Amino acid sequence: MDVDADGLEDFENVARYDTVRVEAFSDAVFAVAMTVLAVELLPPEHQPGDLLHALLDQWPAYASFLASFLYVGVMWMNHHATFTRIRRMDRGLRFANLGILLWTVLIPFPTAVMADTLQERNLADSRAAVALYALIGALMCASWLVFFHYLTSRPHMAEEDVPDRFFHAERTRAWVGVALYCVAGVLGTAADPLVALAIFVALPVFYAVTSEGLLEMRWAGERTRRK
Amino acid sequence: MDVDADGLEDFENVARYDTVRVEAFSDAVFAVAMTVLAVELLPPEHQPGDLLHALLDQWPAYASFLASFLYVGVMWMNHHATFTRIRRMDRGLRFANLGILLWTVLIPFPTAVMADTLQERNLADSRAAVALYALIGALMCASWLVFFHYLTSRPHMAEEDVPDRFFHAERTRAWVGVALYCVAGVLGTAADPLVALAIFVALPVFYAVTSEGLLEMRWAGERTRRK
Amino acid sequence: MDVDADGLEDFENVARYDTVRVEAFSDAVFAVAMTVLAVELLPPEHQPGDLLHALLDQWPAYASFLASFLYVGVMWMNHHATFTRIRRMDRGLRFANLGILLWTVLIPFPTAVMADTLQERNLADSRAAVALYALIGALMCASWLVFFHYLTSRPHMAEEDVPDRFFHAERTRAWVGVALYCVAGVLGTAADPLVALAIFVALPVFYAVTSEGLLEMRWAGERTRRK
Amino acid sequence: MDVDADGLEDFENVARYDTVRVEAFSDAVFAVAMTVLAVELLPPEHQPGDLLHALLDQWPAYASFLASFLYVGVMWMNHHATFTRIRRMDRGLRFANLGILLWTVLIPFPTAVMADTLQERNLADSRAAVALYALIGALMCASWLVFFHYLTSRPHMAEEDVPDRFFHAERTRAWVGVALYCVAGVLGTAADPLVALAIFVALPVFYAVTSEGLLEMRWAGERTRRK
Repeated sequence: MDVDADGLEDFENVARYDTVRVEAFSDAVFAVAMTVLAVELLPPEHQPGDLLHALLDQWPAYASFLASFLYVGVMWMNHHATFTRIRRMDRGLRFANLGILLWTVLIPFPTAVMADTLQERNLADSRAAVALYALIGALMCASWLVFFHYLTSRPHMAEEDVPDRFFHAERTRAWVGVALYCVAGVLGTAADPLVALAIFVALPVFYAVTSEGLLEMRWAGERTRRK
Repeated sequence: MDVDADGLEDFENVARYDTVRVEAFSDAVFAVAMTVLAVELLPPEHQPGDLLHALLDQWPAYASFLASFLYVGVMWMNHHATFTRIRRMDRGLRFANLGILLWTVLIPFPTAVMADTLQERNLADSRAAVALYALIGALMCASWLVFFHYLTSRPHMAEEDVPDRFFHAERTRAWVGVALYCVAGVLGTAADPLVALAIFVALPVFYAVTSEGLLEMRWAGERTRRK
Repeated sequence: MDVDADGLEDFENVARYDTVRVEAFSDAVFAVAMTVLAVELLPPEHQPGDLLHALLDQWPAYASFLASFLYVGVMWMNHHATFTRIRRMDRGLRFANLGILLWTVLIPFPTAVMADTLQERNLADSRAAVALYALIGALMCASWLVFFHYLTSRPHMAEEDVPDRFFHAERTRAWVGVALYCVAGVLGTAADPLVALAIFVALPVFYAVTSEGLLEMRWAGERTRRK
Repeated sequence: MDVDADGLEDFENVARYDTVRVEAFSDAVFAVAMTVLAVELLPPEHQPGDLLHALLDQWPAYASFLASFLYVGVMWMNHHATFTRIRRMDRGLRFANLGILLWTVLIPFPTAVMADTLQERNLADSRAAVALYALIGALMCASWLVFFHYLTSRPHMAEEDVPDRFFHAERTRAWVGVALYCVAGVLGTAADPLVALAIFVALPVFYAVTSEGLLEMRWAGERTRRK
C-alpha cells in the first residue's frame, strides 16, 4: 500500500491504492474486447465454389471490425496516456474506470449488429444498426467525460507535474467525441448508413492523432519547432 | 521468493509466495468473464425492416448483462480491496481463491439462460432461470465466505495494520449476499421473475457501496465527520 | 536484461531473460482457457415450460466443465509452484512452455465433445469422446514431462536452493498423470464412459494435493510432525 | 515516468513511457488470440455412432489450428525478443505495435475459413481459403516490417548494447516471411491447397528457429564453436 507523505495519509491509506492493478485489469479488458471483435468475423455461408464472392460480399463486416478495433485500440492508448498522469486511485475513480470498461466490452455487440445488417441492405434496419453503434460510441466518450470530470475536481490525484489544463483539454476531446458520434448517428439515419460507417472508421483517427492530449500536442509541436 | 523474518520462514519459504501472481491471474479471469458477458449479446433474429423492435424486445438480455457486469465488476473491486490486506498466500488460500474464480467464470451461463428465457415469457421457464441465477449468485458469495473464513483463522496471513474485525466484517457482508440472492430467488420463483431480475441488478450496488468493507466505511465516515 | 554474475553472462545475456513475461503470458492463457470452458455451457434447447428438466438433463456438461476447470486450475498452480523455482529462461524452455500452453488451450475442445456426447447416450460415441479427452489429458501431462526433462538436464536454470530431487519428483508426478489418463481412457472405452468421466473429475485432485511437489509434501510433513 | 539522463528528457518525458504496459497489453492479446483459435474447434456434426470418423474427418481443422497456434506463439516469442532490445516507446511505435496486434487478432478468421473449407473439398473454395490465409499471414509479416523500419530509423529508442545490424537483420526476416506466405498462397491457388496448408504449418518453424534474430543466431553459433 503506497502511502503519501502529506498530512492525508493515515486517512487515505485504506481507501487509496496505487494505479497498477487498475491499469493491468483495464488492459486485459481492452485486449479481450479487441480479440473478441475479430471472433465475430465468421466464415460466410456460401454455395459450393462461391466462397470468394461470399468473402468479398461481407466487406461491411470488415469495415465494422476495423472501426471498432481502431476505437478500442485508441481507447487503450488514451487510457495509457491518462494513467501516466494519475498518482492515486480512490473508489470513485475505480467506478468511473469501470464505466469506461462497460462500454468497451459492449462495443462488439453493435459491431456485430452493424456487420450483419449492412450486408442485408434493408434501409430501415441499416439505419437502426448505425444508430445503435453511434449510441454506444457516444456513451463510451461520455464515460471518459465522467472520468475526467472526477479527476479535474480532485487535482491532488494527478501527478504533480501535469498542468491543470491537461484534464480540461481531455474533457474537451471527450465532448468532441460525444458530438461526432451523435452527428454520425444522425447522418446515418437521415441519409446513407454507409456514410455513418465511414465516419465510424474515421473517428478513431481523430482520437489517435490527439492521443497525448490536445494540449500536449500543441506543446510538443512548439518545442519541435523551437529546436 | 519472499521470505519473512519471523521464525517460520524456513518452513514456509517453499509453501508461501507473494500475492502478486494470484492477483494478476484473478484479474485476467475477471476481465475475460466481464467481456464474455457482452459477447453473449447477439444480433437479434428479425423480419426485414424490424431490427429496431427486435433490439428493443431483447431488453431482458440487456438487464441480465448489466446485473452480471456489475456483479463481476464489484467482485473485482472486493478482490482488490481484500488482497491489499493480505501479506501471504498459501496453498489453501489459493484454492479458496480458485473457488471464487469458479463461480465467476460460471456467471455468463445463468446470465445467458435468464436473458434467453425472460424474452420468451413462459412463467415456469422464467422461474427456473431466475432460480438458477440466484443459485450461482449465492454460491459466489458463499465462496467468499470460505475465503474469509480461511483468512480469519490465520491472522498471520493478513497485513499487520489490518484490524482483526476487518475480515469478520467481510464475512458478514458475504453472509448478507448469500441471504439476499436466496431471497431474490424465492421471490422470483414464488412471485414475478422480473422482481428477481430487478434485485439482481440492485444487489451489486450493495456490494459496491461497501466495497472497502463495512468496518472501513464506518471508520472512514467517523474520520470524515471529525475533520 | 538480467545478467548473471557467473562466467556465462556475455554469451547468455542475449538468449536468456527473466521469467516474468513468460509467467504473465502463461497466466493469461490459463485464465482465458478457464473462462472459455464455461462459455461452452449454453442455454439448453427445450419445450416451453420444460427448461428446468432441460437444465438438469445436461448434467454431463456440468461434470465435464468441472473436470476441465479443475484440471486447468491445478495446471496453473503447478506452473506457479514450478516457476518460483526457475531462475532463468532460454529459448528451449520457452518452447517447452508453449507446448504446455498448446494442450491447455485445446482442453475446451474435448470438453465440449464429451459434454455434447454424454447427453446423447450413444455408447460408441461416448467411448470416442472419453478417449479423445483422455488423449488430450495425457498429452498435457506429457508436455510437463518434456518441460521437467529439459529443466533437470540444465540444473543451472533452477534457483540455487531447490534440491536436485525436486524436478525429478515432478517428472514422476507427470508420468503418473500420463498413466492415469491412459487408464481412464481404456476404462472409459472398454467399460462405462461415465467411469472415465468420474476419473477425469477426480484426477485433478491428485495433482492438487501434490501441487507443491511430492518431495516438498513429504518434507513439509516431516517438519510438521517434528514441531 | 522513466526519464532518460540525456539532453532530450524534458521534451520527451511526456511523450515517451517505458515499454512495460505495451508488453503486458500485447501479451494479453497474443494469449487471447491463441485460446480463441482452439475455441473454433467445434464438436463435429455426425450420425449417431459415427463420432470417431467425424472427429478424424476434420483433420484439416486440426492442421489449420496448429499452423495458427504456432504462428501466434512464435510472434509472441519474437515480440518478447524484440522488446528486450527496446528502451523507449513513443506514439509511433505504439501504433506500429497496434498494427501487429491487428493481424494477430485477425488470424482466427482465415483459420476458421480454411478449416471449414478444406473439409468440404471444393477446389475453388479451398484455393480462395488458402489465398486468404496467405494474405493475412503476409500482412502480419509486413506489419513487423513497418515496426522494424520505424525502429531502425530511430536508433536512440533501442537499448545501447544492441548492434545496429540487429534490427536490419530483423527486417530481412520479416521480408522473408512476406515472400514465403506469398509463395504459399500462389502454390496453394495454382496447385494443391494442401501444399499451402503444409507450408503454413512449416513456416512458423522458420521463425521459431530464428526467434532471437538471424544475426544473434550466427553470433551465438560462432561463440559456441569457439568454446
